[in-house]
Amino acid sequence: MPHPLDSFFAPASIVLIGASRDQDKIPGRLLSMLRKNGYPGQLYPVNPNYGEIDGLACYRSVAEIGAPIDLAIVIIPARGVLAALAQCASAGVRNAVVISSGFAEEGGDSAAMQDEIAALARRTGMRISGPNAEGFYSEVQKVAATFSPTVDVRPGHVPLVATRRRIGIVAQSGGIGFAIKHRAKAIGVAISYVVSTGNESDLGAGEFFDYLVQDASTDVILLFIESIRDVGKFLAAARRAAELKKPVIVTKVGRSGAGQRAAASHTASMAGWSAAYDAVFAKYGCIVSNDLDEAITIAAVLASNPLPKGDRIAVLTVSGGAGIWGADAASMQGLQVPELSKGIQAEIKTMLPSYGTARNPIDVTAQGVNSGGLQRSIDLLDRSDEVDAILVVLSLSSETRMPFKEAELTPVIAAQKKPVVFYSYTLPSEFARRALASSGIVVLSGLTHAAVALRHLVQAAKFELPPPVAADILPAHDLAAHLNAPALSEADSKALLRDAGIVLPDEVLVTEKSGLDAAIARIGLPLVMKIQSPDIPHKSEVGGVRVNIATKGEAFMAYQPLLDNASKHRPGAAIQGVLVAPMAKKGVEIIIGTLQDTTFGPLVMVGLGGITTELFRDVIYRPAPVGAGEAAAMLDELKAAPLLKGFRGAAKADIAALARLIAQVSLLADRLRDEVSEIELNPVLVHPEGQGVTIVDALVVRKINRRPREGGNP
Amino acid sequence: MPHPLDSFFAPASIVLIGASRDQDKIPGRLLSMLRKNGYPGQLYPVNPNYGEIDGLACYRSVAEIGAPIDLAIVIIPARGVLAALAQCASAGVRNAVVISSGFAEEGGDSAAMQDEIAALARRTGMRISGPNAEGFYSEVQKVAATFSPTVDVRPGHVPLVATRRRIGIVAQSGGIGFAIKHRAKAIGVAISYVVSTGNESDLGAGEFFDYLVQDASTDVILLFIESIRDVGKFLAAARRAAELKKPVIVTKVGRSGAGQRAAASHTASMAGWSAAYDAVFAKYGCIVSNDLDEAITIAAVLASNPLPKGDRIAVLTVSGGAGIWGADAASMQGLQVPELSKGIQAEIKTMLPSYGTARNPIDVTAQGVNSGGLQRSIDLLDRSDEVDAILVVLSLSSETRMPFKEAELTPVIAAQKKPVVFYSYTLPSEFARRALASSGIVVLSGLTHAAVALRHLVQAAKFELPPPVAADILPAHDLAAHLNAPALSEADSKALLRDAGIVLPDEVLVTEKSGLDAAIARIGLPLVMKIQSPDIPHKSEVGGVRVNIATKGEAFMAYQPLLDNASKHRPGAAIQGVLVAPMAKKGVEIIIGTLQDTTFGPLVMVGLGGITTELFRDVIYRPAPVGAGEAAAMLDELKAAPLLKGFRGAAKADIAALARLIAQVSLLADRLRDEVSEIELNPVLVHPEGQGVTIVDALVVRKINRRPREGGNP
Repeated sequence: MPHPLDSFFAPASIVLIGASRDQDKIPGRLLSMLRKNGYPGQLYPVNPNYGEIDGLACYRSVAEIGAPIDLAIVIIPARGVLAALAQCASAGVRNAVVISSGFAEEGGDSAAMQDEIAALARRTGMRISGPNAEGFYSEVQKVAATFSPTVDVRPGHVPLVATRRRIGIVAQSGGIGFAIKHRAKAIGVAISYVVSTGNESDLGAGEFFDYLVQDASTDVILLFIESIRDVGKFLAAARRAAELKKPVIVTKVGRSGAGQRAAASHTASMAGWSAAYDAVFAKYGCIVSNDLDEAITIAAVLASNPLPKGDRIAVLTVSGGAGIWGADAASMQGLQVPELSKGIQAEIKTMLPSYGTARNPIDVTAQGVNSGGLQRSIDLLDRSDEVDAILVVLSLSSETRMPFKEAELTPVIAAQKKPVVFYSYTLPSEFARRALASSGIVVLSGLTHAAVALRHLVQAAKFELPPPVAADILPAHDLAAHLNAPALSEADSKALLRDAGIVLPDEVLVTEKSGLDAAIARIGLPLVMKIQSPDIPHKSEVGGVRVNIATKGEAFMAYQPLLDNASKHRPGAAIQGVLVAPMAKKGVEIIIGTLQDTTFGPLVMVGLGGITTELFRDVIYRPAPVGAGEAAAMLDELKAAPLLKGFRGAAKADIAALARLIAQVSLLADRLRDEVSEIELNPVLVHPEGQGVTIVDALVVRKINRRPREGGNP
Repeated sequence: MPHPLDSFFAPASIVLIGASRDQDKIPGRLLSMLRKNGYPGQLYPVNPNYGEIDGLACYRSVAEIGAPIDLAIVIIPARGVLAALAQCASAGVRNAVVISSGFAEEGGDSAAMQDEIAALARRTGMRISGPNAEGFYSEVQKVAATFSPTVDVRPGHVPLVATRRRIGIVAQSGGIGFAIKHRAKAIGVAISYVVSTGNESDLGAGEFFDYLVQDASTDVILLFIESIRDVGKFLAAARRAAELKKPVIVTKVGRSGAGQRAAASHTASMAGWSAAYDAVFAKYGCIVSNDLDEAITIAAVLASNPLPKGDRIAVLTVSGGAGIWGADAASMQGLQVPELSKGIQAEIKTMLPSYGTARNPIDVTAQGVNSGGLQRSIDLLDRSDEVDAILVVLSLSSETRMPFKEAELTPVIAAQKKPVVFYSYTLPSEFARRALASSGIVVLSGLTHAAVALRHLVQAAKFELPPPVAADILPAHDLAAHLNAPALSEADSKALLRDAGIVLPDEVLVTEKSGLDAAIARIGLPLVMKIQSPDIPHKSEVGGVRVNIATKGEAFMAYQPLLDNASKHRPGAAIQGVLVAPMAKKGVEIIIGTLQDTTFGPLVMVGLGGITTELFRDVIYRPAPVGAGEAAAMLDELKAAPLLKGFRGAAKADIAALARLIAQVSLLADRLRDEVSEIELNPVLVHPEGQGVTIVDALVVRKINRRPREGGNP
């Protein structure tokens, strides 16, 4: 299916505005890289100072060319860029990449010039990448529209290609984007595209991502993200990738304070709050990796293996110590390394010398490998139903000979239905890499990374995109009447939640002491009394809460002091009265919250209540809304999840009711995204299975008069 | 100072028993490796089948040589090894390395042969390494007593050497030991020794470790450990290394179930419980790394940098995105990446183009690097007091040119008083590695590993070996009277602890209901009543505990049901009575325990009490005894440490009293190591500062009739 960016990535003709003969400078290098990489289309250098460059006719301006142009590469000083782009648009150029720097990243007038570029793109329909971009590279189409030294072609060099499938790279840093390519190619991972997005005046990371998702030559996508600008396009692409089961590996930087500070100035982006990004990545099954070699290892393993059916790993080795390490590494990632059955052990034993072991890890021994034990063991394990993937741990440092007969391995690997991952504990030689490339094997050099990649392979096989959220879990009531005041008390908040369709305990707001009798009669004993004021969000701090009131007398005694405490600590506060509520049954204490992220809008959060949430940072976020199934999956991710599942003989908690509540609250936050900035239910007590949940306290925070939340930790 | 193993590692003469002309086989390769690596001493091949090998006179037996021999390398079939070693001993050979396999790793008679080798060593004083070893390699002394392909000498190859300091390697896996060397040398880390320890019939990892600790040519030590056999020697060496501040990096495998299973069969060792190993490593400041490249990166950084004064990192970069990533990576390791002062920013700005940034990360920009900004920035940062170490993040992939003038960098680096770590996001070229090696710089290829190494550098600078434990924190009372019975109840355990000098609350063991009155009068109300029986360690499980008894009447009502519950649930249990104890004041709930590890003996453990310990695995172990200072450091390592330090406005807890109690308990466990297997104080309540701690429950477990604890998780 054609895509609007086809002519960008596979241009039939390119004009190079600012072309130069000087190959030591960037403009000269651009022309030379395009030609060295064998660009097959029409190439038009533009520079009024030359008649020809390196045998190519050179033009004074785009207008002079008089032929259709798919792509303009612009590399002239910043002040001339807008005019050049306007000429391109007039000449019918369809796309442009602006390499030139000196725009939003410098602020002031330079930023204004970038705004004009964006306006030009909108006005003319010409699509513009950059400015301040390192360009892009298409291995498939042989377009090296970049000055990156990593696309230079070494004479006589035969590229190492070990994967039939290709990875595509979108990077908000040209340096990193091309570094990924450089490292990936060094281990034999085939590349489709590398795109450096620059300042994203028009074309953004989300739109490039979208291109790679639909691109048939891209099988795995690797993203380097500082901050998403075209959020809607990004999310749509992420969803589509998940639907197509095309793996996406994403590195998000600007996670630390210092990183955010730097990201804010670099390419003029505002780094978002990383927890919100991680929540979005989790929703769409994007694999998050914050290490370059780890990300490439995951990509390499995904590009060269089928997905496994389960998480049982066989470790095949030639070194006892390395095999133990391999088993440890897989186990540390939560993978299983099961002891093999006696039957299969006996079969494997026939291929090994007496000092080999077959329990798993399987020590084939150097001699066993020599005599064909490796490939025969792989073959055997592939046919067994005892393991789901194979991790081969051996030494591939020799520059002259392989420890086994490559010709015998190739058909075994070709017939594999399970992932087989090769790791060399010595530094793998180029010779070994090339020898194994012919079997489609990428030799990995990092054991931890290999184990992490296997874990992601297992998780990718299990991942399912959550279904659309059923709107009927919460009736679509009009809640406008609750949103007149700038601030809501607990009672106001609970009234809103009740009207929204969320079940809360019966409670009575007592506004006169004389009303206490009726309230006690209705609520029963023991009960809780809480001061109510939209101006007092933290009631305990002002002595505004009394729990476990067991008698009527106590209730009457408590009433006036609650009012007095409030007026003493918050003299001006508007007091609504005292909320009388039943003491809740015991349960596991949970906190549910929603908040608004600058980039992604409403998020829903769940964590264990009490000190645990804060001390162990045991909270899980997702973009709102979530369905009940997705909410249950969030609960599963909590470190404290065992507490809900009947910890130390306790009753299993009502996870279904809790998940439903999370889903309802998340849907409400989404519906009220323009009016409400936060909802906090804290605590929610989760009772034993079948007995539901109790919302003890609740607060809804209005969005009135608040500036949009900044990227920092809310 | 001479060391007993000097003649092993620097032999003036070597006999090779089992020498061969066939270089495709291990015996032939051994001779050839020794000669290719330029062994400078006398070399005597022994093989009755040859008169000479490759120009060297070949002997029929060791006896025939008639000259002093420092080292015998034995590579003949297993069944002939013992006799050959006996001949060596008779001929006065001082040391032997047995390469041959087929001993303890095969079990049965083969294991018995190994025992005889060990006995021979003890009897004759000849020191023996192996059997089943891959030998050793001394770069310093040019002794390649190994068949490892990694010591092969490539003609014309000039080794890459970037560090003046050298790392020494002791590995309980020859494959891994030489792989470490192979990878380390590839990035320019100089090596002193590599020792593969094999089955350790006589010489063990601990003794080799000891050699490297005292060896002047070894500056950093890297250990690969499956299981320590010569524990005393290992611990003494670790202590000495800590005293000398010689860094030790250790990889311990066999951490997972599958890893332990494999380690148990591999080189016939029993893999210990890894938490005990980690406790020992922590005590002596050994750096634990479970990844090969990470361990080598740490070694490389330690071998090429001074220690930093603090944890403030400057990130210098040429790529905005990579700089953000660098700042993130350092921050994720808990290091600071502080924004620089306006003053130093202004100074740095003068060296950069307008689009560079100096806040930190400092984006020098490619142009800025070109014009000398990198070395001038390093120089400036070295003289500033705003940062303690510098992380340089750039692209060093070019095979032909450096991005800066190497000659300008060299003097800047030579004058450095702070660590300067170079990381290349593109794959570093051999050209760049060699160019920077002349400045003593190792180019790192993994950013996470680089940040981890910086963290360890900071920690190594701060590490201090805990002082010897003061014996007077616990009087040396005779506790024998408490250790007559095979099992102790809570009351028995507390009596023991009291007599040992540990302060506990006043409590009364009531043996007749008539005694309750006096007990209540003494203890006061509210109180706790607990059934006491050495046969009921878990009192709650049998309904044997009543808390918060507020009145005398309640206490009398509770008495008989406690006895009844016990006889109902544990019919045969010997009941001592009911322990009457005061309700403890509130406090932070802590658990203190001791246990015995097969390898290292008594360990002390501390964790937050309640569900947290189990759910978040938040416990810290140390070998017992610990002093109060070391105990306080253990508390600091808990994730829950903030709870003791005044969390959310709560009072700061009495950490001093808690640390003193941990120290006392650990000393007691050490003194009673032959009689007591476990002590558990659970919970201990820690009151606000100055108000001490309360031991609520305690159990001492006798060591009678128990087999030595196996390596598994206790």
